Amino acid sequence: MDGPLLVLDPRDGAPIGVRLVDGVRRGILGGLLAPGDPVPSTRALAAELGVSRSSVVAAYEQLAGEGYLELRQGAPTRVARLVVEPEASAPSLSPSPSPVAGPSDRTGPEAPRGDEPPLLRIDLLPGIPSTARIDERAWRSAWRRAAAAPIPRSSPPRAGLAGLRVEIADHLRQARGVGCTSDDLVVTAGTSDALGLLGAALLELARDDGGAGGAPPVVAVEHPGYPSARRLLERRGLVIAPLPVDADGLDLDALRRMPRPPQAVMVTPSHQYPLGGRLPVASRLELIDWARATGALIIEDDYDSEFRHLGAPLPALASLDRLGAAGGRTGPGTERSSERTVLVGSFSKVLTPWLRLGYLVLPADPALRAAVLRIRADEPCPVAGPAQEAMRVFLASGALRRHIAATRRDYAHRRRMVQSVLGELPGAPLSGLDGGLHAVVGLHDAEASAAIVARLAEEGVGVAPLADYSAVPGERPGGIVFGYAGVGDALLGEGLARIRAALVDTLAPGRRE
Amino acid sequence: MDGPLLVLDPRDGAPIGVRLVDGVRRGILGGLLAPGDPVPSTRALAAELGVSRSSVVAAYEQLAGEGYLELRQGAPTRVARLVVEPEASAPSLSPSPSPVAGPSDRTGPEAPRGDEPPLLRIDLLPGIPSTARIDERAWRSAWRRAAAAPIPRSSPPRAGLAGLRVEIADHLRQARGVGCTSDDLVVTAGTSDALGLLGAALLELARDDGGAGGAPPVVAVEHPGYPSARRLLERRGLVIAPLPVDADGLDLDALRRMPRPPQAVMVTPSHQYPLGGRLPVASRLELIDWARATGALIIEDDYDSEFRHLGAPLPALASLDRLGAAGGRTGPGTERSSERTVLVGSFSKVLTPWLRLGYLVLPADPALRAAVLRIRADEPCPVAGPAQEAMRVFLASGALRRHIAATRRDYAHRRRMVQSVLGELPGAPLSGLDGGLHAVVGLHDAEASAAIVARLAEEGVGVAPLADYSAVPGERPGGIVFGYAGVGDALLGEGLARIRAALVDTLAPGRRE
Repeated sequence: MDGPLLVLDPRDGAPIGVRLVDGVRRGILGGLLAPGDPVPSTRALAAELGVSRSSVVAAYEQLAGEGYLELRQGAPTRVARLVVEPEASAPSLSPSPSPVAGPSDRTGPEAPRGDEPPLLRIDLLPGIPSTARIDERAWRSAWRRAAAAPIPRSSPPRAGLAGLRVEIADHLRQARGVGCTSDDLVVTAGTSDALGLLGAALLELARDDGGAGGAPPVVAVEHPGYPSARRLLERRGLVIAPLPVDADGLDLDALRRMPRPPQAVMVTPSHQYPLGGRLPVASRLELIDWARATGALIIEDDYDSEFRHLGAPLPALASLDRLGAAGGRTGPGTERSSERTVLVGSFSKVLTPWLRLGYLVLPADPALRAAVLRIRADEPCPVAGPAQEAMRVFLASGALRRHIAATRRDYAHRRRMVQSVLGELPGAPLSGLDGGLHAVVGLHDAEASAAIVARLAEEGVGVAPLADYSAVPGERPGGIVFGYAGVGDALLGEGLARIRAALVDTLAPGRRE
Repeated sequence: MDGPLLVLDPRDGAPIGVRLVDGVRRGILGGLLAPGDPVPSTRALAAELGVSRSSVVAAYEQLAGEGYLELRQGAPTRVARLVVEPEASAPSLSPSPSPVAGPSDRTGPEAPRGDEPPLLRIDLLPGIPSTARIDERAWRSAWRRAAAAPIPRSSPPRAGLAGLRVEIADHLRQARGVGCTSDDLVVTAGTSDALGLLGAALLELARDDGGAGGAPPVVAVEHPGYPSARRLLERRGLVIAPLPVDADGLDLDALRRMPRPPQAVMVTPSHQYPLGGRLPVASRLELIDWARATGALIIEDDYDSEFRHLGAPLPALASLDRLGAAGGRTGPGTERSSERTVLVGSFSKVLTPWLRLGYLVLPADPALRAAVLRIRADEPCPVAGPAQEAMRVFLASGALRRHIAATRRDYAHRRRMVQSVLGELPGAPLSGLDGGLHAVVGLHDAEASAAIVARLAEEGVGVAPLADYSAVPGERPGGIVFGYAGVGDALLGEGLARIRAALVDTLAPGRRE
């Protein structure tokens, strides 16, 4: 191999392991290394870079886990061939998809992602972050500075305050490796506003297009998946098509088997909501190729991927989609917008849903951008100007970065608590813990799951039944979903003990007798 | 007449004229006085209350102007019979309604109510308030207190912060005479969020109802009227039915002539947007009776009625609808919710659209309330918690009340400037000035109007063509709409002079030659 395999960014203060992983990843995604190419031996690379061999071994292992490299005993390590391997999927969670879900699950869950949790002593409903480590001085200072600014007489700009968008772009670069610019960003009142705006834009584009006989656009969604998002889109007049997920996230074969491609597919590739699977890089690239071929939009719901507990985060679809086509990816392209991926993010998990602040990272598609801005002309950016300015100051102060670092440690500790209390129960596999703020206990029986949820509620512990996330009417996968981030260690310990007791009693009722 | 005709609230610090008008109005609306009843002579009432006779005369005149009383030379003054008198309507603005407007006007106006006005030197686009008199100390203090509060881990409550809702209810009682409670209120991110929420609720109710073969709900709207609201509802999947307006606001006969009653009618009764007509009390009561008979919802867009320059404000539909049926209204009913009226309000005109803060006052209808809260469970209240808390503190400090009082004086002065510069132009009647922040110059020719708007834009003066407000595709009423509230007196004077010059040149082009 001529020239350096990778150049580590000398300004980057990250640990060598992280920089190594990032460098090799960029080399592969940027086309320096083609699928099937051998990579240097760990020994050779360690010598070239002047780092310990064990660092390189660990980096290669992580890259293999992420799907970038193929490690084989006794053979050179190679760049993975980036093909989708069919995977066995968990039986209760991968139903054959029905093409259109009805609105019958409307009476289902009570906003599992946060609104007004009932007054329980131990609230382990998924989606609640910890706010204990927010730098209150920086927080107060940010709002004070926002309040001292002159008070304009107009609505905030359609895409949001320019200064805030610059800071969000910085945050995305640092925390997610997404190299967008402020021009790609639209500030939203959280994820629901973002999805509502996208849904409205898809409807406008379908109407302008006049294709499909004026039929409403179809959005393929994960099943099980985020129920509020599904209902929101249905409420806007879009048609929902549920697709199964497996341990690796969305089942791409099911997507390809759809009789006609949907106008959009909504995915949670970093940490499938709620099951927790992670879409491998090869599948991500496949998904992007599919979207480019069909013209469909990928809606990447990147709701909690700042928190990755096992392995570094995989590149966002929105990042991968900024590179050239899969056959000939030509360079890092840091200044390009994505082609078909819109990233939906928010500060709800990374800070608090109390803020109602989120964003869209739009792809280059000029028609989509125009539709979004046209809608925002009629329905102005709903985020108060002072809240935007306060968030700009807070981000610029570095307080969010420090908060994420501190909170990540807290969450990693709580995650270990979850594993130690619930990790070994036969018949109740624990999953979804590689990232994010919640976990899933798999159960075969939806009725038993509902009974456990009800018993825990009576005991003051709030958790959600997995059946609430079903996107297919009548299908009720067994299992319970709970968050472990939002309560302190003592309460969490008590809550986990009660969950364990409820599970043990249900799985082996004889024991108590 | 036995007992006192009216009891003036002794705690009320308002001028005697305002209290007189309010007292008689309450007597009529509360059923103490029936339609056709004679009221005491001005002399007798002045003696009874110990006030000057001229105060009573002025109050009776105002009440007659508002439609409560009938004054006749040489006959006793009586309570008006509360019937709708058909009125001649301005020719260019009262087209025969087409039952369903298409989306063809989507390319029309650029957000005439506020978003991102182009960078003009003299921005007279309608809807821009003055923020010059906001008490900046109270403003900063409110945000500082909001930032000092603990940071919750959840979304704000579905209906908004309870403390803020209490303050908004107080504001509505004081500034608008609407006696709602905080339980009737839902906090929104301005008017567009409020209308989106209502539209979604109407869709849900229509779907649950299953009536009309699953057809989407129809919302009757004013023509000309608020274009963003119309497009917003269409975007949500509702069907728009434009109805003509005349000098008194919505044409109720046209509403009654609709082949089937719409599911809702959206009106701006205090100050028709944009023409400025005011719906008389008799028509208001008729509209409420119609809504009660048909089950339709009245959406009262109360966007700028805190600013009334000529005559006291009329009672809001939401107030009138809290009383008994028209045939036997039984008492002030201050604790009742309205039956069929939802009031949509915001702080965009009364403070600044920069805040993106508004509210709904919901009627008693339990199905509607349940639908609204169900939607908010999926799509949380989009207003940042700190913004809600800051507004609560700001309202509680009395700063908004003081701001309205100060701004009202400014606007009254600017309104007189408008009248003195543009009030006497033949062929270009000035209207809409009785309240609010904008005025209309009527013109017969839409092409000439567009040319005037373009010329003024070139000269750095931003105004809107009335044609932008058309709700009927292909109908383009002549006229221009401009705001006079948001710029200082000097700039306003310059802008008005340029408007006058453009009008004079257009109406009498020979003069310049």
